[in-house]
Amino acid sequence: MEHLDEQERQNAWNEIEESLRNGKIDQFRAEFLELHPYDQARIFEELEESLRQEIYMYVSPEEMADVMEHVDDEEVEPYFSEMDPRFASDVFAEMSSDDAVDIMNQLDKDKVASFLTIMEQEDAQEIKDLLHYEEKTAGSIMTTEYVSLKASMKVQEAMNHLRTEAPDAETIYYTYVVDEDKRLVGVISLRDLIISEPEWTIEEAMSDRVVSVSVAKDQEEIAQMMRDYDFLALPVVDFQDHLLGIITVDDIMDVMDEEASDDYSKLAAISDVDGPNDNAFTSAKKRLPWLIILLFLGSLTASLISQFEEQLNQVAILAIFIPLIAGMAGNTGTQALAVAVRGIATGEIRKQGKVRMMFREASTGLITGVVCGLIIMGIVYVWQGNFFLGVLVGISIMSALIVATIAGSFVPLIMDRLNIDPAVASGPFITTINDLISILIYFGMASAFMNLLV
Amino acid sequence: MEHLDEQERQNAWNEIEESLRNGKIDQFRAEFLELHPYDQARIFEELEESLRQEIYMYVSPEEMADVMEHVDDEEVEPYFSEMDPRFASDVFAEMSSDDAVDIMNQLDKDKVASFLTIMEQEDAQEIKDLLHYEEKTAGSIMTTEYVSLKASMKVQEAMNHLRTEAPDAETIYYTYVVDEDKRLVGVISLRDLIISEPEWTIEEAMSDRVVSVSVAKDQEEIAQMMRDYDFLALPVVDFQDHLLGIITVDDIMDVMDEEASDDYSKLAAISDVDGPNDNAFTSAKKRLPWLIILLFLGSLTASLISQFEEQLNQVAILAIFIPLIAGMAGNTGTQALAVAVRGIATGEIRKQGKVRMMFREASTGLITGVVCGLIIMGIVYVWQGNFFLGVLVGISIMSALIVATIAGSFVPLIMDRLNIDPAVASGPFITTINDLISILIYFGMASAFMNLLV
Repeated sequence: MEHLDEQERQNAWNEIEESLRNGKIDQFRAEFLELHPYDQARIFEELEESLRQEIYMYVSPEEMADVMEHVDDEEVEPYFSEMDPRFASDVFAEMSSDDAVDIMNQLDKDKVASFLTIMEQEDAQEIKDLLHYEEKTAGSIMTTEYVSLKASMKVQEAMNHLRTEAPDAETIYYTYVVDEDKRLVGVISLRDLIISEPEWTIEEAMSDRVVSVSVAKDQEEIAQMMRDYDFLALPVVDFQDHLLGIITVDDIMDVMDEEASDDYSKLAAISDVDGPNDNAFTSAKKRLPWLIILLFLGSLTASLISQFEEQLNQVAILAIFIPLIAGMAGNTGTQALAVAVRGIATGEIRKQGKVRMMFREASTGLITGVVCGLIIMGIVYVWQGNFFLGVLVGISIMSALIVATIAGSFVPLIMDRLNIDPAVASGPFITTINDLISILIYFGMASAFMNLLV
Repeated sequence: MEHLDEQERQNAWNEIEESLRNGKIDQFRAEFLELHPYDQARIFEELEESLRQEIYMYVSPEEMADVMEHVDDEEVEPYFSEMDPRFASDVFAEMSSDDAVDIMNQLDKDKVASFLTIMEQEDAQEIKDLLHYEEKTAGSIMTTEYVSLKASMKVQEAMNHLRTEAPDAETIYYTYVVDEDKRLVGVISLRDLIISEPEWTIEEAMSDRVVSVSVAKDQEEIAQMMRDYDFLALPVVDFQDHLLGIITVDDIMDVMDEEASDDYSKLAAISDVDGPNDNAFTSAKKRLPWLIILLFLGSLTASLISQFEEQLNQVAILAIFIPLIAGMAGNTGTQALAVAVRGIATGEIRKQGKVRMMFREASTGLITGVVCGLIIMGIVYVWQGNFFLGVLVGISIMSALIVATIAGSFVPLIMDRLNIDPAVASGPFITTINDLISILIYFGMASAFMNLLV
């Protein structure tokens, strides 16, 4: 079986919709539940409310939980609102606690409180514990549904324990070992467990070189670690090494996607990539704040140029090269920025040191500046037949590129030092700074050598 | 144990270097091999060549293979060149075949051929088979070191088989089941295996709803699938459903990182994010091609403006707003581009349909255009006290934003339709197109209403 392509999903959708409309419960259940929950969720989202209400009647809270875990967190609110509250709270109880918390973080506090009240004590407590942790930390993405083993257990005993616990645990491929005080002391993979002798103790079979993360650690750093170390799971501990939960690789893949979209969006100056169900108004609302800020920043550039109205009146041709010089400064600054932001995100820059990086960027700016400066000097000379104009534009571009490259890498490094996410220093801001600097250089030099130009 | 921070790695590095310099083999081995291969690789890369040569003497090919799997593919070439060729080919033989192939794709064809000649027949064949597949397809990222089970085996027998094969297999957590013709017929997780009765056959215990990918499938789509479906492994098949290899989640995390960096770099117009060991010349060489193309595109803008020299001579103040209008068109185009590129990358756009997306973007452009146009109209009127200039700039920005938004989303959609990676339509190209369009609109309107302005 290939996974469902557009056509197959459409066919499945048609069949399922028909069964629902005709009230054929068994047929609906057979068709719907044979699909992967990811595809179930895609079809579920396309149905109208009356049919969704039928589904709530025909599937169990556990089956619905699987579907809800595959709906985008930001789209899920209306579905929980339209469900019968008792059914909704049962669905939450059946979900992985980390996924349930991700969704609850999107809901009204009142609604969350009422769901938690109806829910069974134990399930509610698990979710409440997780709701405390700050977003984007280890605590917020970990699950508390894991199996742990005691160091003193026998391997045989441990296997039996895993067999019983397997259905409720997020993973049993890596199991963490704790001492009497619930402190993390080791890790054993299922792979090692099945090749160990049944009568060994876990302490003998496990590895005591277990890597853990603190509950407050940033999710992006955790993603880096899991990728670098090829982990399938990672235990989360408090400051006394008590095991609090585990993070599994499937959650980390979502984190990687989220962080990549985030960096990408900021480089493009959108606060958030539009969701699939956004209409034009929602999209415009997300983009307008940036555009309005940029409009004011752009007015700064305009007002700077207006200071040189006199020069423009004398040599109107100066205006021709404004977008070229500002544009090149913007482009090169964005390049330097992107290198710095990715370098910080992947941890490369921490390894090689910031001073070395700054020095390299300055030299890179020098090289690219000289090359581009010489090229444009030639172009302008040939095109306009004016040697001094060529020199002026060439030197302006050279200086602008050097300054812009340094600015592009310096700003994110400073922000990282100040513990601000460097991606916030998004492309357009760097571009505006570089616009201003490059225009200042250009008109500054034009004023100084005005007598050569007229 | 936390993973190594900068300080701890520095300490380990000092100790290891000292042991190497003093020829204390046992002490070096103890200190080096206790580290995670990821950290081994980081320290290894920092050592000078004479010390690396010592390491090649003191560790086994298998231990070196672990280190090499954690060195960046693009940095690995000098190490294999400086090794004794026999040792190097032993290291390749010990690596996961998929990782070995990734590295060989970076080496000279001559070198690869000579390594393969020295290597044992069987290992060489495995690598040769994989070298055929095109880069960035399932074939190029899959491994052939997997365990498969026959449908007729008993569970007990299968467990014994896994125990023997575990050390050489990439994963045993998901095992694929084949029929007599090596065709894929099912999948069984180790989890299901340990809770099944020993005397059942695999056919009874397995799931026959196994998702597979074709060997030519694009790696980005595979990453989407594994993330959506929460898979830890995925089988790769040919067109007749023969099992060829498996793809594991750790390779997919590298793919996700690579694709995210790729999209990000293209938005910023760098061909490749600089590697950690790049010097200024290498960085400049990577950025200059883009900058030079953009320089010529920028000259187009300049030459377009020069067509309006007459208008500029009459109303020099017109020049003031050129960067603002071009900049806003560039910004809004980049926003639309980013939304489209991310939407294609995550598969969202395929779900909602391209026509709907285009319509939404056009409406979004209209809304943002009207809002920004009105704001700038006010600013210009208050600042310059010239009503017509305000209207001119306002209407220009409004039209530019609408056109730029449509262009920003239309171009990547067209490229996707033509099977070109839409990320190639990088920010600066869209920006240049939008520069040209917006300047044309601005000066076109200025020419038409010149008598109102002077």
